Amino acid sequence: MRQYRHAVGSDLWEIPAGKIEPGEDALVCARRELQEETGYAAETWTRVLSFYTSPGFSDERIVLFRASRLRPVGTADHGEIAERCARSIDGIERMIRASQITDAKTILAVSWVFGRAKETPDARPTAAP
Amino acid sequence: MRQYRHAVGSDLWEIPAGKIEPGEDALVCARRELQEETGYAAETWTRVLSFYTSPGFSDERIVLFRASRLRPVGTADHGEIAERCARSIDGIERMIRASQITDAKTILAVSWVFGRAKETPDARPTAAP
Repeated sequence: MRQYRHAVGSDLWEIPAGKIEPGEDALVCARRELQEETGYAAETWTRVLSFYTSPGFSDERIVLFRASRLRPVGTADHGEIAERCARSIDGIERMIRASQITDAKTILAVSWVFGRAKETPDARPTAAP
Repeated sequence: MRQYRHAVGSDLWEIPAGKIEPGEDALVCARRELQEETGYAAETWTRVLSFYTSPGFSDERIVLFRASRLRPVGTADHGEIAERCARSIDGIERMIRASQITDAKTILAVSWVFGRAKETPDARPTAAP
């Protein structure tokens, strides 16, 4: 989705994400953020990778999950989201190449998960919003 | 290479990188960092992508280049580097899956560049240190 980022001073297209509450399990957080930001829940969750976003000056660490078999479960209620959309992986890759997607976690997620998936087509999601 | 990161409190394996000096061209910086950190120069440089590492709280932006046709040009002189090594792309992907590489820019670079390169094998580097 598209979201205004004060630190950057512009809107960025990003995959759903959010801060883990103190003591919260990363998967619980991921489920909550997906539902709040998109209005969808996933039947299948797979932990993909964990990585440091900018280890030169921050210990921020992201845990990346893949959510598959999505179903609508209500209305997205995250007020900070300017726009939501669904795109094919090819469409997302075109947006990355055209510098329309510039968020590192989003580029990493798409290129790692679907770079892998290209070799195992049955790993593609079975549904998308 | 492997480098101690104070913010994280441990050593991380990362691709060569460094801060752009005020007014410096990103490619000039990339050439300098490659030589200082590895002792190699590249005949071919390709600008790949630019991305924000952590737009939720920082405007840090990385410009990613691909350096090909490498040749040794001297001794690496970057005192902060604990260890350098050359790995195949398959070897790097195994390190990522095993959580031995946790730096986002490194995972992004490898999965984007070599995810693409898999479809165009002649885009692989012609030499590696």
